[in-house]
Amino acid sequence: MLYQTIDILGTVAFAISGVLVAMEKRLDLFGVLIIAFVTAIGGGTLRDLMIGNTPVGWMQDLTYVTTIFITVVFAIIFVNKLKYLRKSLFLFDTIGIGLYTMVGVEKGLEAQLLPIMCVFLGTMTACFGGVIRDMLCNEIPIIFRRKEIYATTCILGGASYFLFMQFPIKDSYAYVAAILVVISLRLIAVKFDVRLPNIYKKEA
Amino acid sequence: MLYQTIDILGTVAFAISGVLVAMEKRLDLFGVLIIAFVTAIGGGTLRDLMIGNTPVGWMQDLTYVTTIFITVVFAIIFVNKLKYLRKSLFLFDTIGIGLYTMVGVEKGLEAQLLPIMCVFLGTMTACFGGVIRDMLCNEIPIIFRRKEIYATTCILGGASYFLFMQFPIKDSYAYVAAILVVISLRLIAVKFDVRLPNIYKKEA
Amino acid sequence: MLYQTIDILGTVAFAISGVLVAMEKRLDLFGVLIIAFVTAIGGGTLRDLMIGNTPVGWMQDLTYVTTIFITVVFAIIFVNKLKYLRKSLFLFDTIGIGLYTMVGVEKGLEAQLLPIMCVFLGTMTACFGGVIRDMLCNEIPIIFRRKEIYATTCILGGASYFLFMQFPIKDSYAYVAAILVVISLRLIAVKFDVRLPNIYKKEA
Repeated sequence: MLYQTIDILGTVAFAISGVLVAMEKRLDLFGVLIIAFVTAIGGGTLRDLMIGNTPVGWMQDLTYVTTIFITVVFAIIFVNKLKYLRKSLFLFDTIGIGLYTMVGVEKGLEAQLLPIMCVFLGTMTACFGGVIRDMLCNEIPIIFRRKEIYATTCILGGASYFLFMQFPIKDSYAYVAAILVVISLRLIAVKFDVRLPNIYKKEA
Repeated sequence: MLYQTIDILGTVAFAISGVLVAMEKRLDLFGVLIIAFVTAIGGGTLRDLMIGNTPVGWMQDLTYVTTIFITVVFAIIFVNKLKYLRKSLFLFDTIGIGLYTMVGVEKGLEAQLLPIMCVFLGTMTACFGGVIRDMLCNEIPIIFRRKEIYATTCILGGASYFLFMQFPIKDSYAYVAAILVVISLRLIAVKFDVRLPNIYKKEA
Repeated sequence: MLYQTIDILGTVAFAISGVLVAMEKRLDLFGVLIIAFVTAIGGGTLRDLMIGNTPVGWMQDLTYVTTIFITVVFAIIFVNKLKYLRKSLFLFDTIGIGLYTMVGVEKGLEAQLLPIMCVFLGTMTACFGGVIRDMLCNEIPIIFRRKEIYATTCILGGASYFLFMQFPIKDSYAYVAAILVVISLRLIAVKFDVRLPNIYKKEA
């Protein structure tokens, strides 16, 4: 139940981020819908394709389609009010990437992949919907450009799960703890402007 | 026989649209070939990947590769004459999206997906070759930007099939009727400049 | 052993080309890593997806991930020295596309595809990592734009394998011969500036 609520909140946050990017590009209604969809389900789709988990997840469950559709309708109507929700949306997104990371890790384990590959899958699930969104909107993906760490928190959180599993605790505790690691790291990153080390001589 | 003819005409229309976009970008011969290919078989490929129908369809049937190759050769040679064929090409394309939509819907049914997912698959089959074409050519996909409805006709046509199936008619009749719905809606849309509702305050 | 060495050298060359393109776009560390990855394993991933070979190859073998990671670290540190390695990198890349082409052809044969489809798969394996790299970096793929032939050498080399197989020679000889064809053609192409025929009236 809690799990499902988080999942839906994450989907809502991702879909809204899609709507915002698409509307900034002034796409039409169909374009906005597709971008919202892709943002919300693109990462999971890519993950499912990589491990051969087909038909891909969202096609077998009406929840996502319905959630995204309703979100898009509301987001378009209340687009001017969305700025007042910035904090909530940020929070949903943060919770969303925490959960999505671990969903991906779990799918990797089910496919009997090595831990590092599971972490990759988790990060892909959480972050690559946004990457496809940006590709479709003709932008270099935002998570590839310097700002506070985002994908890195998913990598660290996913890795923390395998660390926690070394201890004699229940699997589900380690699972939740890893989600909390992603969320905490992301909150800390934004609060203290934590960035990846600069690899260039001078800032562009 | 009719089915195959339509299929080939659709492939020809899609391939030519790929050649035109690629040549506008002044790609080299290889680039033009790949873009033509992707435009013609990209939607079906994405569909097949999503439902796990691999190796993807066009790899198991020489018809598509041959058709596309011959089309590209002729299209490059007669590129300056193509403008006289605008009407035929529009017609081929329209018939093509009608057919491709229903091919996708059928594959969805075979994969035992829900009707709405089948409609998604159909629309993907018909429209996403063009989306990948535009991504490769570094453009925001044309079907995401305001003009007469295109993908929407596929959605409505695909949905109409499930409506027709409520009546006591043969499956193949409903299939053909749905194709005709897509084609008719598209013709009407272009003739009367039917667009999706504008979601922005002012037109950009 | 030789096979593996070539494979690793190819991966290194591809990863470095990814680092260079990504750093030109001034992506952050995460972006550079992902682009390097995608350049090195994107072609093989696409190939595996197309034929339903999942989980995709690189997820089942730590070699690639490790190689790419180490390559990226060194490439970033020594980025200013990389220009002195231009010749070696070109050579690695050339050997890499030769090998990757034949790996793809072989996977196609395993999937019982027609020869022409195997050649497609080989070319995809060798060239489409770079295509995805360029898409992510918001550029029209470089192999679609006029310069000395690149993908074409993979197509010809892949096709030569099926020619060689007509003769009463060992399979592994034909395999190696085809790799050498790709490499030779590419070397010749660069030395003598061999390009595809121009399909435009005037050079842009």
